[in-house]
Amino acid sequence: MDENAIAILGGTGDQGLGLALRFARAGRPVVIGSRKPERAVEAALQVRATVPGASVTGLENGDAAELAPIVILSVPFEHCASTLKGIQKRLRAGQIVVSMGVPLATAVGDGATRMLGIWQGSCAELLATLVPEGVEVVSAFQNVSAHRLQHLETEVECDVVVSGPMAARKRVMALCGLVPGLRGVDGGPLANARIVEAVTALLIGLNARYKVPEGIGIRFTGLPSA
Amino acid sequence: MDENAIAILGGTGDQGLGLALRFARAGRPVVIGSRKPERAVEAALQVRATVPGASVTGLENGDAAELAPIVILSVPFEHCASTLKGIQKRLRAGQIVVSMGVPLATAVGDGATRMLGIWQGSCAELLATLVPEGVEVVSAFQNVSAHRLQHLETEVECDVVVSGPMAARKRVMALCGLVPGLRGVDGGPLANARIVEAVTALLIGLNARYKVPEGIGIRFTGLPSA
Repeated sequence: MDENAIAILGGTGDQGLGLALRFARAGRPVVIGSRKPERAVEAALQVRATVPGASVTGLENGDAAELAPIVILSVPFEHCASTLKGIQKRLRAGQIVVSMGVPLATAVGDGATRMLGIWQGSCAELLATLVPEGVEVVSAFQNVSAHRLQHLETEVECDVVVSGPMAARKRVMALCGLVPGLRGVDGGPLANARIVEAVTALLIGLNARYKVPEGIGIRFTGLPSA
Repeated sequence: MDENAIAILGGTGDQGLGLALRFARAGRPVVIGSRKPERAVEAALQVRATVPGASVTGLENGDAAELAPIVILSVPFEHCASTLKGIQKRLRAGQIVVSMGVPLATAVGDGATRMLGIWQGSCAELLATLVPEGVEVVSAFQNVSAHRLQHLETEVECDVVVSGPMAARKRVMALCGLVPGLRGVDGGPLANARIVEAVTALLIGLNARYKVPEGIGIRFTGLPSA
């Protein structure tokens, strides 16, 4: 396992691919995972075409998950639990799973500006019940626009609230610094994912009302600059 | 009733007093309400001492509510419903009640970074069940730091998500423009107050982790500037 590698399961989707492009551009080895390995290979080729010299590979999700200390789960909410269950046995103590899922009501045929109630409180907390011992779940990246991630020529002006166990969340906050414009913000315990995930539904509504298909982001004001 | 007046019930509290100071500074007549009229009078004197020439009066909550088209409810969450019940009969069709309450778990002896579940979904939606016909509830101002409101010499760098029935929320969004730095953002239907209220709990945690007693705010990035 390459200590610098970042695995992105669902890295063929808009947001996952955006993160793959940005992390590759920052010089980090990227492993793209997909349910169908051929789609992962295709996405890896796409990243390499955009970021010449990028170290990026495409693999089936379980194979991808074995290759990086941080495994970002970038699949639609309704597939988060099943994807994690599918790779459970491939994870080792010390790894971090990053939850990006948002329980939008679209999962049950309702609208994207409304949320489902999740028994555990949030997608991230649901996933935390499914990882093997010693693997930690961190919540991050939900509110980052896929469109803005994919447009490498511009900064992604957005704060990323990172929640989860302290040491793990510090490591994920550091990842944010790899993407120009992104800033990792210490979001405290994992339960705060309940709020951060819901902010995505609010942003989707704002995007529609203000007609900003590129996606509206958030910044916190008054944070110490250090 | 003065069409330009703004009533602030609980205007003796930190956040309510901050709004009173800012609206008075902007030249709007302010009516401060309190359960105890003598405390309201005291707060009004305080506003006049800080903003010379301000048009500000202090009255018992029910009397205050009759004097302005927009009535801001700035009392702790646990007193929101009872305060509104106490003034119900004084409200008239066409008035707007602004809900600022946040169901923090402090109301039941738990911490301020956690939320209570409200049957109706949010404080604002709870209050919407208590107003007379023709009176509309709008959710706003939850995330604005009391400290920053009270320091008139500096801008309050914060977006205010305003949710509720369309015409009413446009009127409350316009109020935000009276305070330098505040920007009213169209937060859509009242149910979005569920998200906006919860953001307050997130901000309280950030204030603690980042040691910013003055209060951290939020801005949305990518909004059209017009």
